[in-house]
Amino acid sequence: MTALKNDRFLRALLKQPVDVTPVWMMRQAGRYLPEYRASRAHAGDFMSLCMNPEFACEVTMQPLDRYPQLDAAILFSDILTIPDAMGQGLYFETGEGPRFKKVVSTLADIEALPIPDPHKDLGYVMDAVSTIRRELNGRVPLIGFSGSPWTLATYMVEGGSSKDFRKTKAMLYDNPQAMHLLLDKLAQSVTSYLNGQIMAGAQAVQIFDTWGGNLSAAAYQEFSLAYMRKIVSGLIREHEGRKVPVIMFTKGGGLWLESIADAGADALGLDWTCDIGDARRRVGDKVALQGNMDPTVLYAKPEAIRTEVGRILASYGKGSGHVFNLGHGITPEVNPEHAGAFLRAVHELSAQYHE
Amino acid sequence: MTALKNDRFLRALLKQPVDVTPVWMMRQAGRYLPEYRASRAHAGDFMSLCMNPEFACEVTMQPLDRYPQLDAAILFSDILTIPDAMGQGLYFETGEGPRFKKVVSTLADIEALPIPDPHKDLGYVMDAVSTIRRELNGRVPLIGFSGSPWTLATYMVEGGSSKDFRKTKAMLYDNPQAMHLLLDKLAQSVTSYLNGQIMAGAQAVQIFDTWGGNLSAAAYQEFSLAYMRKIVSGLIREHEGRKVPVIMFTKGGGLWLESIADAGADALGLDWTCDIGDARRRVGDKVALQGNMDPTVLYAKPEAIRTEVGRILASYGKGSGHVFNLGHGITPEVNPEHAGAFLRAVHELSAQYHE
Repeated sequence: MTALKNDRFLRALLKQPVDVTPVWMMRQAGRYLPEYRASRAHAGDFMSLCMNPEFACEVTMQPLDRYPQLDAAILFSDILTIPDAMGQGLYFETGEGPRFKKVVSTLADIEALPIPDPHKDLGYVMDAVSTIRRELNGRVPLIGFSGSPWTLATYMVEGGSSKDFRKTKAMLYDNPQAMHLLLDKLAQSVTSYLNGQIMAGAQAVQIFDTWGGNLSAAAYQEFSLAYMRKIVSGLIREHEGRKVPVIMFTKGGGLWLESIADAGADALGLDWTCDIGDARRRVGDKVALQGNMDPTVLYAKPEAIRTEVGRILASYGKGSGHVFNLGHGITPEVNPEHAGAFLRAVHELSAQYHE
Repeated sequence: MTALKNDRFLRALLKQPVDVTPVWMMRQAGRYLPEYRASRAHAGDFMSLCMNPEFACEVTMQPLDRYPQLDAAILFSDILTIPDAMGQGLYFETGEGPRFKKVVSTLADIEALPIPDPHKDLGYVMDAVSTIRRELNGRVPLIGFSGSPWTLATYMVEGGSSKDFRKTKAMLYDNPQAMHLLLDKLAQSVTSYLNGQIMAGAQAVQIFDTWGGNLSAAAYQEFSLAYMRKIVSGLIREHEGRKVPVIMFTKGGGLWLESIADAGADALGLDWTCDIGDARRRVGDKVALQGNMDPTVLYAKPEAIRTEVGRILASYGKGSGHVFNLGHGITPEVNPEHAGAFLRAVHELSAQYHE
């Protein structure tokens, strides 16, 4: 493997000194980019794009080619590849978000679920990782990722997206044993999936717990965090002679940072509702922090974006341990020039905090 | 006015001793009740129902008639009556939520907005309050309410509901002066509206900050909490020889409880993501707490509902200062018998904490 030319991102995740605060954007390969929309038009539906390693590589590289400031690439894929590999039949209806042909309702449904073999059942993801890694050629590190067990479970039980997760929560409260079995199978699947990505070339991994923040404080500990902890304890933590940092991101998890910081990850993702300075004081030296600008700030003018970047950098303060990001994915309607202004502001305004 | 037969709710809001923990449910007069759906069928659209004091009174009383455990009634109305009275033209499209005919986009739009006179422009709400109060005849206290300035502003700028409040946030970041003028006008309007409700007979008032929790920590302080503080400082705090408690409810505001507790309200509403025992330790003796069962627990079986009620009561612990509620409104698909099981469990299981 080629030596890494820009390792700011990996260094900051381990709280090692950096020259400027590294930055990337969740969903940086996405619909806000005209070049992405053009690739999509050729590739057909979303899952075809994910399943084709050449296409996944092409769109992963697009934001890097446009924005020289990006300090990391992230595998282009979907969080729902694991349930799909379990035989649930993932598909996307235009404007409707993800749907599953099969829905998980009973203990018998859960008992029948297989644990996917990443190399056999998710080989297209492993191929995408190695293809992208080759194409990156040491430019920036590559991030692998998975959805959290709880987040995956919500889609499997609801059969798609949901506003209030009523079926999933009814199962959680009525039949906690069944829910625990489902989450345990998902935790095993995520562990081997992320390890597969690491062996294929992912240099850091992020667990997206998109819906953990919708749980009560008690249910979060038992039904989301416990399974992410289990995953982290089973991950390959060093590869190619270098640590492979793990980022845990519970959207809406700001109330629980102390316990998330104890779950074994190297870094926590923060949404924009947390003040990042407060978060740093709360987690102390245990973990690095990633985030946390409100993605809707990108709808404002470049001067306003720059002001907000400056505010967040000042709140975090001096020293390493901060990876700048949005507090959630960049949205399709954002002007790509605003994204560029955001990325430039992070590098330009952060140097003073690393002297 | 008739003497109040059940004042548990008002006493708990002021941290005075009670026999059992009082309970009510946000949106307790709502679509989950067949009797409500029947009234709706006769009344026509949602705003016609709100604007007719007899109908508003009828549906306000329905949950009280069904559930003898309810310790408070809440005015049946909509949070968007103020923007409607400002001339924005509120209407409801089936399955689409609230919409406005006019949208607030520029400083000139904001400058042109009038401050409604509650007795002239919102007389139908004042009439509903006095009609309900008469009908209640001292059975339980009546809660008046309003949306918070920030929450009302999001609907006025977006023209209806929104997933990410992009227009409102773009205005906030690009043109904070315009946003402050809008919020200031809304704060003035809410203050006189709530005072009108108090004079008409509301015995407690709640400010619903449904969307404040979507702001960054810094923006929440400046654009939501500051205006709620202003409202509280202008409210009539005693009427009919009794204190009129104020409840401030920012959904998703759990990270900011210390500052919300300092904003002058008597009680804070909590959504279900906060542990209520932690919240109590954080706010100390400053305020009472209202909440906070995940409303989706009502989709589970009565035994599971009872367990969750017991868990929350135990977390709050001994003594007054807790009004039990859901962490958000009850949803249309809930089985009314499950709501009954919830209310009974609160009274039955809470006596031990008030000995």
